[in-house]
Amino acid sequence: MKKIEAIIRKSKFDEVRDALHQIEVNFFSYWDVTGVGNEKHGHVYRGVSYSTSDIQRRFLSIVVSDDFVEKTVETILQSAYTGSVGDGKIFISPIDNTYRIRTKESGEMSLN
Amino acid sequence: MKKIEAIIRKSKFDEVRDALHQIEVNFFSYWDVTGVGNEKHGHVYRGVSYSTSDIQRRFLSIVVSDDFVEKTVETILQSAYTGSVGDGKIFISPIDNTYRIRTKESGEMSLN
Amino acid sequence: MKKIEAIIRKSKFDEVRDALHQIEVNFFSYWDVTGVGNEKHGHVYRGVSYSTSDIQRRFLSIVVSDDFVEKTVETILQSAYTGSVGDGKIFISPIDNTYRIRTKESGEMSLN
Ligand SMILES: Nc1ncnc2c1ncn2[C@@H]1O[C@H](COP(=O)(O)OP(=O)(O)OP(=O)(O)O)[C@@H](O)[C@H]1O
Ligand SMILES: Nc1ncnc2c1ncn2[C@@H]1O[C@H](COP(=O)(O)OP(=O)(O)OP(=O)(O)O)[C@@H](O)[C@H]1O
Ligand SMILES: Nc1ncnc2c1ncn2[C@@H]1O[C@H](COP(=O)(O)OP(=O)(O)OP(=O)(O)O)[C@@H](O)[C@H]1O
Ligand SMILES: [Mg+2]
Ligand SMILES: [Mg+2]
Ligand SMILES: [Mg+2]
Repeated sequence: MKKIEAIIRKSKFDEVRDALHQIEVNFFSYWDVTGVGNEKHGHVYRGVSYSTSDIQRRFLSIVVSDDFVEKTVETILQSAYTGSVGDGKIFISPIDNTYRIRTKESGEMSLN
Repeated sequence: MKKIEAIIRKSKFDEVRDALHQIEVNFFSYWDVTGVGNEKHGHVYRGVSYSTSDIQRRFLSIVVSDDFVEKTVETILQSAYTGSVGDGKIFISPIDNTYRIRTKESGEMSLN
Repeated sequence: MKKIEAIIRKSKFDEVRDALHQIEVNFFSYWDVTGVGNEKHGHVYRGVSYSTSDIQRRFLSIVVSDDFVEKTVETILQSAYTGSVGDGKIFISPIDNTYRIRTKESGEMSLN
């Protein structure tokens, strides 16, 4: 099992959520965070320098079985995309075990 | 060392905190998140369909030594339980190292 | 790649951010959390008992390449330090992969 953390534009949240539901990724948690960038250098995109400091972002935490990782990443890459600097990041990390509190089930059967 | 993330009902927070203190798990961090569910299907429990979409939840992040994982999970499974759909989830993930900023100690001695 | 999570005093945030920028760690996410301590025992520091319960903290999540872990930790240990109880914690965990949504790049080249 893996945890997929995605830091996206708040304005793309509904699109990302709907796209995840389309591939049957129905459960996840989210909260709002601040993204820090380097004000001194900024980013240059098509010759224009952008400051990416202190932008409001939405942080999604999604735990999925191994065979869902690839399509979940693909789906976020597509639905969170605008093409302008600052579309966000995706981080994948290992999960050792999971539990559903109501049933005390653990492992993949506790995920959906 | 492991990180135990628990997403629980806000209404069960005090019970979970007190139960954790009973087993000497005295330090952790928490914040409020939104839980997304699948509005289209919902969950069926005893013949009744529940929508679990966009529920306010509390997210607990607790880093413990390996020998505390099992009792911490047991304690959350019991204290966060109501038996109704939506009691929440527990996720266990690996931690490579930890530091206490005040003393610069690392490893298990930095946890308590 | 590693994720560095630091839970620091809010009052030290600007110092930590500036110190991270000095070592070219320019991008990270943060949000505010509540830290729970054990009200019953508290901490004893120079003979004085402190309660560390329910303190407002700032949670930083920073994903870096392996060769940046050590200097990032050192920088936080120094810039978040006051010497009084409650300076906070640092947790290091493994990251399997990362993606930049705008370019679909993955791995270390997607981090900066
Ligand atoms: N290494 C990182 N660790 C933790 N969070 C990060 C990291 N890099 C970026 N973020 C978070 O992701 C948000 C969006 O980052 P952003 O899309 O600007 O990444 P980028 O690599 O600068 O891409 P772009 O070149 O398109 O701007 C940031 O505001 C921050 O919250
Ligand atoms: N796979 C997941 N990844 C991340 N967060 C999740 C995941 N599944 C559930 N959550 C979070 O946990 C909260 C509670 O989930 P919930 O208890 O409804 O799980 P469930 O498996 O649907 O159990 P139940 O059948 O009892 O409803 C959700 O609102 C969401 O915040
Ligand atoms: N094991 C832990 N798991 C998750 N979060 C923790 C853990 N320990 C501490 N924290 C978080 O870090 C914050 C600061 O902790 P604190 O600096 O008091 O650590 P400490 O080990 O008690 O150090 P000190 O002895 O200096 O007080 C807490 O308020 C809590 O948010
Ligand atoms: Mg950027
Ligand atoms: Mg549910
Ligand atoms: Mg303390």
